[in-house]
Amino acid sequence: MPHRLIRMQRAGKGRRPVMLAIAGDSASGKTTLTQGLVQALGPDRMTAICVDDYHRHNRRERSGQPFTALHPEANYIEIMEQHLQLLAMGQPVLKPVYDHDTGELIRPVLVEPREFVVVEGLLPLHSKLTRASFDIAVYLDPPEEIRRSWKIKRDTTTRGYTREQVEAELGRRESESEAFIRPQRRWADIVVRFAPVTKRHDPPETPLSAELMLRPTIEHPDLSAVVGESDHRAMHLKLLRDTDGRPVDAMHVHGYVSEEESGLVKKAIWDRVAADGPVPPELGTLSDGKRSDPLAITQLLLLFHLLEEARAQH
Amino acid sequence: MPHRLIRMQRAGKGRRPVMLAIAGDSASGKTTLTQGLVQALGPDRMTAICVDDYHRHNRRERSGQPFTALHPEANYIEIMEQHLQLLAMGQPVLKPVYDHDTGELIRPVLVEPREFVVVEGLLPLHSKLTRASFDIAVYLDPPEEIRRSWKIKRDTTTRGYTREQVEAELGRRESESEAFIRPQRRWADIVVRFAPVTKRHDPPETPLSAELMLRPTIEHPDLSAVVGESDHRAMHLKLLRDTDGRPVDAMHVHGYVSEEESGLVKKAIWDRVAADGPVPPELGTLSDGKRSDPLAITQLLLLFHLLEEARAQH
Repeated sequence: MPHRLIRMQRAGKGRRPVMLAIAGDSASGKTTLTQGLVQALGPDRMTAICVDDYHRHNRRERSGQPFTALHPEANYIEIMEQHLQLLAMGQPVLKPVYDHDTGELIRPVLVEPREFVVVEGLLPLHSKLTRASFDIAVYLDPPEEIRRSWKIKRDTTTRGYTREQVEAELGRRESESEAFIRPQRRWADIVVRFAPVTKRHDPPETPLSAELMLRPTIEHPDLSAVVGESDHRAMHLKLLRDTDGRPVDAMHVHGYVSEEESGLVKKAIWDRVAADGPVPPELGTLSDGKRSDPLAITQLLLLFHLLEEARAQH
Repeated sequence: MPHRLIRMQRAGKGRRPVMLAIAGDSASGKTTLTQGLVQALGPDRMTAICVDDYHRHNRRERSGQPFTALHPEANYIEIMEQHLQLLAMGQPVLKPVYDHDTGELIRPVLVEPREFVVVEGLLPLHSKLTRASFDIAVYLDPPEEIRRSWKIKRDTTTRGYTREQVEAELGRRESESEAFIRPQRRWADIVVRFAPVTKRHDPPETPLSAELMLRPTIEHPDLSAVVGESDHRAMHLKLLRDTDGRPVDAMHVHGYVSEEESGLVKKAIWDRVAADGPVPPELGTLSDGKRSDPLAITQLLLLFHLLEEARAQH
């Protein structure tokens, strides 16, 4: 994140919060990642908001539009920018609310930033001004076939759609995903990809592996002592070129990692967080209640950055 | 208005608008005064908003509260302050909307400031931060018995209430009017009182007279050549002490003023506005469609200040 907002201390009140963006397409795992962070830090320290409510139109109005709700033109991007800047300055905002059940824009809610603010959504890294609000930016980048299966599973079980409806919607959104959602990957400090490891035949219950692209745009903890550089280890760090040619550290956390090995890495990051007590047990909880060490390690890395940023600022 | 907001030019876009506040109690004539200004300048040059929509609660929730909707605690004052500051900086806001028919908080609206912004409402001059947003501040101060009759007439004919209901509501609101609405008079550059002239027996169709307190907080046009200083004239200017003891120029425009005399004053102010063409015919229109020269002269004076301020800024 090269361009940071020049922040003003909020006059007479509070301090400016540490701002974390979690961007990604629909059903890419944003809420699952966010919830563990809120539970670990406590809702009294962390405000979590979703910025998918800045729609210009309700569902009925939108049906006559040439684009889906993903399109920036379908959203009050300027107001989203303004609200993110205000939150970054420690100010409250009256955030619009889109009711996903009825498709209506309803009564807005007051959002007051606490010590940490997590902003998840489809477009939080869309513009220069939104990006300038964040201290840490994450992009969730699962392989498309995994994301599709997550979306179908979620929308048919908890949102009342049929498989055909979800697939049709995925089709309608594809060109706008490509044009507006995926380009945000470019602006992330950390790109997270949960996926099965290819060329292995792990049992179906094996958690997905995580590949974390740790870009040099922020300072990552030195994990070389606990994470090897060899491909043959269950967890390793690898210097490579990103899809855009830029150098990046890629950390692989394999789903079949042993509890001992993941425990060592969790402990190593947790020690750098310099927090007392054990690693928060909420970390790594999936939406179905199962657990994933690659997810827990991803969340620990984000906790490290959040607390590091808070220390640096104050 | 001694404390003005330090304004930033909006990056790359537009200029900051001239901001006018029109404060006053319910049914004190805010909308009538505002509408003539918007018609005279044109809605493409002037944005008019009402700031009575920042309620924390809908009607049902409020019924359990110890105060009415007038009370600052019943409103997101901090968000109103923020929105006024943003508008003053030339930025759009997503303004909350309270539906007076249903008593519900509904879908917010985008408000984009044009060259001039009129902000009318019950509490626009309530706090130091709201006041700092305005270039010109007006307080409407009709005698209570006149305001009561206006409110009863309006709420029974266009809002579906009975006279008894309106009177009960006036009673419920009285202590909060006293505590929060009327103190705003203190912060106005111009205090406007429409009232009949006492000790006269004008026919019932005679428009109300206007008494305009022109405080030295802003620079008023020199009208001494057209408005005499004698009590005996239909229109006069008088140096006196305000109710708080501060010196003030009081301009009286009597409702029985002759068309010739009011025409002279209108022309004199209009010339200082330095606008071509005739005085805008929309000025002076009352809510029932009748016309009032004291209202037209009040609106002309405000037009003078709006255009003067726009010239001074650019």
